[in-house]
Amino acid sequence: MTGTLAQHLAEIAAEMAARSERGRVADYIPELAAVDPDQFGISVCLADGTQLSAGDSATAFSIQSISKVFGLAIALGRLGDQLWTRVRREPSGLAFNSILQLENEGGIPRNPFVNAGAIVTTDAALGKRPPREYLAELLGFVRAAAGADDIHIDRKVARSETETGHRNFAMAHFLKAQGNLTNPPDHVLGAYFHQCAIAMTVEQLARAGRFLAGIQHLIAPERVRRINALMLTCGHYDGSGEFAFRVGLPGKSGVGGGILAIAPGRASVAVWSPGLNAQGNSRLGTEALEMLARRTGWSIFG
Amino acid sequence: MTGTLAQHLAEIAAEMAARSERGRVADYIPELAAVDPDQFGISVCLADGTQLSAGDSATAFSIQSISKVFGLAIALGRLGDQLWTRVRREPSGLAFNSILQLENEGGIPRNPFVNAGAIVTTDAALGKRPPREYLAELLGFVRAAAGADDIHIDRKVARSETETGHRNFAMAHFLKAQGNLTNPPDHVLGAYFHQCAIAMTVEQLARAGRFLAGIQHLIAPERVRRINALMLTCGHYDGSGEFAFRVGLPGKSGVGGGILAIAPGRASVAVWSPGLNAQGNSRLGTEALEMLARRTGWSIFG
Amino acid sequence: MTGTLAQHLAEIAAEMAARSERGRVADYIPELAAVDPDQFGISVCLADGTQLSAGDSATAFSIQSISKVFGLAIALGRLGDQLWTRVRREPSGLAFNSILQLENEGGIPRNPFVNAGAIVTTDAALGKRPPREYLAELLGFVRAAAGADDIHIDRKVARSETETGHRNFAMAHFLKAQGNLTNPPDHVLGAYFHQCAIAMTVEQLARAGRFLAGIQHLIAPERVRRINALMLTCGHYDGSGEFAFRVGLPGKSGVGGGILAIAPGRASVAVWSPGLNAQGNSRLGTEALEMLARRTGWSIFG
Amino acid sequence: MTGTLAQHLAEIAAEMAARSERGRVADYIPELAAVDPDQFGISVCLADGTQLSAGDSATAFSIQSISKVFGLAIALGRLGDQLWTRVRREPSGLAFNSILQLENEGGIPRNPFVNAGAIVTTDAALGKRPPREYLAELLGFVRAAAGADDIHIDRKVARSETETGHRNFAMAHFLKAQGNLTNPPDHVLGAYFHQCAIAMTVEQLARAGRFLAGIQHLIAPERVRRINALMLTCGHYDGSGEFAFRVGLPGKSGVGGGILAIAPGRASVAVWSPGLNAQGNSRLGTEALEMLARRTGWSIFG
Repeated sequence: MTGTLAQHLAEIAAEMAARSERGRVADYIPELAAVDPDQFGISVCLADGTQLSAGDSATAFSIQSISKVFGLAIALGRLGDQLWTRVRREPSGLAFNSILQLENEGGIPRNPFVNAGAIVTTDAALGKRPPREYLAELLGFVRAAAGADDIHIDRKVARSETETGHRNFAMAHFLKAQGNLTNPPDHVLGAYFHQCAIAMTVEQLARAGRFLAGIQHLIAPERVRRINALMLTCGHYDGSGEFAFRVGLPGKSGVGGGILAIAPGRASVAVWSPGLNAQGNSRLGTEALEMLARRTGWSIFG
Repeated sequence: MTGTLAQHLAEIAAEMAARSERGRVADYIPELAAVDPDQFGISVCLADGTQLSAGDSATAFSIQSISKVFGLAIALGRLGDQLWTRVRREPSGLAFNSILQLENEGGIPRNPFVNAGAIVTTDAALGKRPPREYLAELLGFVRAAAGADDIHIDRKVARSETETGHRNFAMAHFLKAQGNLTNPPDHVLGAYFHQCAIAMTVEQLARAGRFLAGIQHLIAPERVRRINALMLTCGHYDGSGEFAFRVGLPGKSGVGGGILAIAPGRASVAVWSPGLNAQGNSRLGTEALEMLARRTGWSIFG
Repeated sequence: MTGTLAQHLAEIAAEMAARSERGRVADYIPELAAVDPDQFGISVCLADGTQLSAGDSATAFSIQSISKVFGLAIALGRLGDQLWTRVRREPSGLAFNSILQLENEGGIPRNPFVNAGAIVTTDAALGKRPPREYLAELLGFVRAAAGADDIHIDRKVARSETETGHRNFAMAHFLKAQGNLTNPPDHVLGAYFHQCAIAMTVEQLARAGRFLAGIQHLIAPERVRRINALMLTCGHYDGSGEFAFRVGLPGKSGVGGGILAIAPGRASVAVWSPGLNAQGNSRLGTEALEMLARRTGWSIFG
Repeated sequence: MTGTLAQHLAEIAAEMAARSERGRVADYIPELAAVDPDQFGISVCLADGTQLSAGDSATAFSIQSISKVFGLAIALGRLGDQLWTRVRREPSGLAFNSILQLENEGGIPRNPFVNAGAIVTTDAALGKRPPREYLAELLGFVRAAAGADDIHIDRKVARSETETGHRNFAMAHFLKAQGNLTNPPDHVLGAYFHQCAIAMTVEQLARAGRFLAGIQHLIAPERVRRINALMLTCGHYDGSGEFAFRVGLPGKSGVGGGILAIAPGRASVAVWSPGLNAQGNSRLGTEALEMLARRTGWSIFG
């Protein structure tokens, strides 16, 4: 198995290296726009403890919205099912940064992965603590999960988002006006922007995702299943149905070009390629996962 | 395994029989409104060929929107991936009979399970044939899958929907105005209402679902996976995220109170209880599936 | 005054004849699409009984949605303020044929001039009568107002709309599903399509509008004021604000290229030019009215 | 005329004093919530220079959104028709503080009177000046128009809005994100909240509105007509159609309970009563204007 898988990964990396159509790199913050689009990395952690990688697997990138998965795990750890009074568990059918449903649905975001829901989740995870305490807990969790002490927050990226993230400020103030934010918008967004600015490699990310594959035990199995369900239905925003249809694995993407995908009981997979498709998800990353799922038969749908 | 499962089903049926809060029976057509709400049935077909049932498992009910799964299989068989130029594969985030997205999205429905998408799928499956030919093919497929020749279309239910289904007529005319219906609205709806009026028992339905569980081979495995992905993300409309979160299985519900759920590689499960929750899905049926998935560990999410 | 006005009209007609950018003729029904776009006519009835015209003022055209004004007068005559329980009096902010608000607002259309509201108004005016009785009353009203017995319904246009008006069928079935239509959709639309197919000249239309200018007494002054208010705020759909801003007169447009505009106490004005702007209102007709209002100082806004 | 009008005003004030149903006082900022709801004042400036008042006509109140009319006059004075590239002239069909259309319409607000549009208009009027310079110009304009040097900005009200105005902050950040705000959101809102906090009496407000009635000449007549058109179609948000239907005059309301209404060529009218109706417009103020318009025949619609 391991031998064949290594070959799959090598072939996939080779095919991706040859691609000319790579999608557009996110350009809304200078730090992300400056990333070389010609990179591609993939890494897989198997249930037997093996890890296999290919491509630029040791280059750190900004995980951005993939961090929402770790933030959700922490929020659930602190609040349990209480969290679900403030955020729902349904696909939104809209873009990740849409404000429409907030107005029509009384400030209760559809799910913890759209930006509004992630801001509420961060506010919940924050509690009454100063943002840096929450960030320390989060970083500790991610480092422990990945077994890597050098995972860090890229402060330049965080600062850049603070200066240009007007749409997220709009969202946070809207949530505050609707009574679904306990902390001041500035505090919550401070924590949120720093959380999104975590930098790591696909090797580290694949290891950090093992607890969702049931390979590493960090949180209750019931909770793992539910996070996976949310990743499947909401992890790629208005491209979630398409991702489920093509790849067939729970996954969470970030505008930095990373995707974490989970084959329950079998593997944790991380891919990274900076160019994005129309829904803001890694273009080659999605294709690579589709190829991998087809070759391995890891789809959860049969 | 089989012994334990029989016990699970018996306990679930007993618990459901004791429930007083059973939801509201669909009342928009007289034939459905007249159904006794105190019924509950469940049936499971396993990979080894065994079938186990409990409760009112031999009572026929109107499968309604569950029929969309069979219609989709036929449309894909005739058109293949061509179908996806006329209907998308994303959760809608809206009610099953919402017309909003059609207006904003140029008449391309979000997925084949919301009513608009099912009407387009029926139109595609129909092709240039008279409705009765399509219905004969559909009924033949369902009978073959279930191994039951007495599955039939309840013409009283179909006629009743034809007379009161103004919202579906609105949808069909809107699709026609937007150029996404090749047949006249009346023809398509004639086929659609009759398709929804198929009556069968949970025992028959569980057997008819075996091809989706990979237990019976009727269509290509790749297509099975994709239908399962669509059932998971879109099968319960704006309650799909909740169903995935709680049950963790691909499923398709109908307003008649039935649900077909698939544990890939393991089992095809049918439940039925006429009372519905706020999203129009069987209330006790959903709870029964949640209990069953927890006890069996069949969740696809770990 | 009359001399100067005659000069204004001649100049306006000359300028409009010289225009090359004339907008697009409505093409959704063959009869309208076949109209020569190079036509322009204008006619004005003054308070002193004078009527002045210029351009193609004696050519009959399809008044289409302008007929909604006459239909509203008849519905109000039959139901009085009862009508306002079924239709509101607010600008919709959306296109004339949008179905969105119906879904969100329980089947109560925003105003009697958007298609949904006009369909409800027609249903109300119809009562339990056969469509042809209502049409006879309507035609009688228009003929009496215009003092012209040869105003007629163009049955080819009506038939054509019946065959292609799927969007209006969608609207009517939706209203029926929501309980805001007492007659069968087919009946109401039969009446509605025939009403819209009334053909008349700008000379006849200007005379038919005198009752709204207070020059001719047909209905109560209070009712006249209210119809004018509705024309000002809703008469040009999502171009109503723009029309009020530029022209400053209550007006009602039709996709046939006609506009009826009212200068209360002073004049009834009809213009016609088949080419439409982006909102579906006569392009040159609007410009002509803007020129006329500026030269005459007839704006109701000072 | 003056004698009869004095009698009308006295009767209206008496009737309003007797009303028990007075609507709800705005409670979103403490300063407004503390206002005694049992107050009512009305004042009319006629073309001949006469001013007549009744009720609490010398009590200062917070004019809130009525200030948008003065802000618009200043913005148009600085930018002319350039302003219309950043804000449209159409009724929104939605609440004054809705954020929905911004998302769907690329950050171009529907009109200068909904909050989003007023924020853009303030940004435009501000230019590159510090907020206090703009506020000095605005206050100078209002004082000159009213001939009253003691009109002032209530800083407690302004501060209170700054602290609780999260929805307006959301709006401003959203506009910034969409590129339709040149100044930082904080600056624009500082100016906007202070503008809304202008306090004056109905006597002062009626005088300040004379330029819109054409009684006093401050800006070009063409511009006056256009502002009146906007007040008629958009001045009462999603209650504008209803106000035009019932009152028949251009008007602008504020959540402080004031309304400025214009009878072009005839009169400038100010009313004030703190209780609001469902659309956030003064309940008794609207009724008083309806009575006044009916008795005087000032409706612009005939």
